[in-house]
Amino acid sequence: MKVDVFFTPGEIRTDSFHQRQAVVIDVLRATSSIVTALENGAAEIIPASSVPQAKRIAAKFKKPKVCLCGEREGKIIPGFDLGNSPSEFKGAAVKGKTLVMATTNGTGAIAKAKSAANLYITSFLNLQAVADVVATDSRDLVLLCAGKEEFFSLEDSVCAGMFLFRLECKKIKMECNDQALAALALYKEWSLDLLRMMKASVHGKYLTSLGMKKDLFDCIQVNLYKNVPRMQKGRIVQ
Amino acid sequence: MKVDVFFTPGEIRTDSFHQRQAVVIDVLRATSSIVTALENGAAEIIPASSVPQAKRIAAKFKKPKVCLCGEREGKIIPGFDLGNSPSEFKGAAVKGKTLVMATTNGTGAIAKAKSAANLYITSFLNLQAVADVVATDSRDLVLLCAGKEEFFSLEDSVCAGMFLFRLECKKIKMECNDQALAALALYKEWSLDLLRMMKASVHGKYLTSLGMKKDLFDCIQVNLYKNVPRMQKGRIVQ
Repeated sequence: MKVDVFFTPGEIRTDSFHQRQAVVIDVLRATSSIVTALENGAAEIIPASSVPQAKRIAAKFKKPKVCLCGEREGKIIPGFDLGNSPSEFKGAAVKGKTLVMATTNGTGAIAKAKSAANLYITSFLNLQAVADVVATDSRDLVLLCAGKEEFFSLEDSVCAGMFLFRLECKKIKMECNDQALAALALYKEWSLDLLRMMKASVHGKYLTSLGMKKDLFDCIQVNLYKNVPRMQKGRIVQ
Repeated sequence: MKVDVFFTPGEIRTDSFHQRQAVVIDVLRATSSIVTALENGAAEIIPASSVPQAKRIAAKFKKPKVCLCGEREGKIIPGFDLGNSPSEFKGAAVKGKTLVMATTNGTGAIAKAKSAANLYITSFLNLQAVADVVATDSRDLVLLCAGKEEFFSLEDSVCAGMFLFRLECKKIKMECNDQALAALALYKEWSLDLLRMMKASVHGKYLTSLGMKKDLFDCIQVNLYKNVPRMQKGRIVQ
C-alpha cells in the first residue's frame, strides 16, 4: 500500500486522491468533535468551507433539526449554536440533528479531500476503528493533516503516525513518503505522553490561553469510541 | 531564543525573517555543495532563482573566473559547467572562482530568506561551525528547510533537528514552534543512522535511481568542514 501523509492541505496536488482512500485528521479540534458528535447520536455532519456557506446550508433545514457549529480563531462564531470543543457535542445538543460545521482548518481539509474514492474522518478518539476499515482495502492511502492555518501541526502529525503504526501492527506493507516516515517517528517520540505533546504544541498553548485546556485532555482519549465517520454525498455519517 | 523551523519555503510569511538570523538547509544537495565549494577555495557563490537569471549573472563575468552550476530534476543543466553533486565542487573547478548556481529547491529558498538580519548556509557537513556562530547571537532564529519541490523533505528536517540539538547542548533556551519540536524528535530517531534515513527518503531514492548514490554518502559527513557561509550583498562567502 502506497501511503502519503500530507502535513498541510497546501501539499495536495490535483491527482493526490486519485483512486485512493483518504483519512482527514484535525485533532484540535474538528475531527475530534465530529467523532464525538456521531458517537452521541448526531444524524450527520455537513462540513462547510466558510461561515456564509454554513449559514446558507443551515437555512435549508428546519431550526430544531439543524445545528450551526464552528469556530474562528478558536472561538465560537457569533450566532452559532456550538463552538468546536468535543464536550459540546453531546446529549440533546446533537442527538438526531444535522450539524453544519465551519472550522478554520478541519472542514476546509475535508472539503479538499472530497475526490478520494473513500473519505474517512479520524482523531485519537476513534483511530483504531478507522485503521481497521482502511486495512481491509487494498487501495493506496492518503492521510491528510489539517494543520493550523496552513502550517504543520504537531498533534495532527503524531496522530497520523499512530494511525500508520496501527497499520504496521497489522502487517500492512507500506511504501511511505517522507512525511509518513516522519509521522511514524513523531508518534514513537510522544506515544507514551500525548498530553506532554499537546501542551508543547502551538495550538495546545493557544487553546489553553483561551481557557480551553480541557479540550486537550478530551482530544487525547485514544480509542474511546469505535465509530467510523465517512463522507457520503457531502455529508459525514457513520 | 525564539526558534521557528519551516519545513518548506511555502510556510514563510512576510515578516518571518524580521530582525532574525536565518539558516537555510538543503542537504540534497545545494547547501552541501555550497559548503564544499567554499571549503575548496571558491571565491563566492551567487544563488539564482532561475536558469535564465543564472545565465544573465554569469554573462557579466569573464569566462575562466565564473562557473555556471546547478540542476533541474537532479541532472546538470545543459550548457552548465557543474551539476549539483558535492564531489564536483572541488579542485580547479571551483578554486578562486565565482559560482553562479541555480538549483530546484536550495537556491530559491536562499533567495526567500534574504531579508534576514543574518543569513547562513548549513548542511550536515558544517553544522557545528554554523551552530557555534548562531549561538553567540541573541536574535531569534529561523531554520528554513528547502524541501523538495514544495514538499517536506526528511533529510532537511533531520538536519534542522541536529542543528537545534547542538544549540540545546550549548544550553541555549529555545522557544520552539511545532516544526522545531518535530525536527528535534526526527533527529533523535535517525541520529545514529543518517544513511538509513537518506536511503529511505524520497529524494535519496530518486538520486540513487539517477546513479548518484555517492551523493548520499557525501552529504552525511557530519562536521567534515568548519566554514560558515553567509550571505553578503547577494553573494555567499565565508
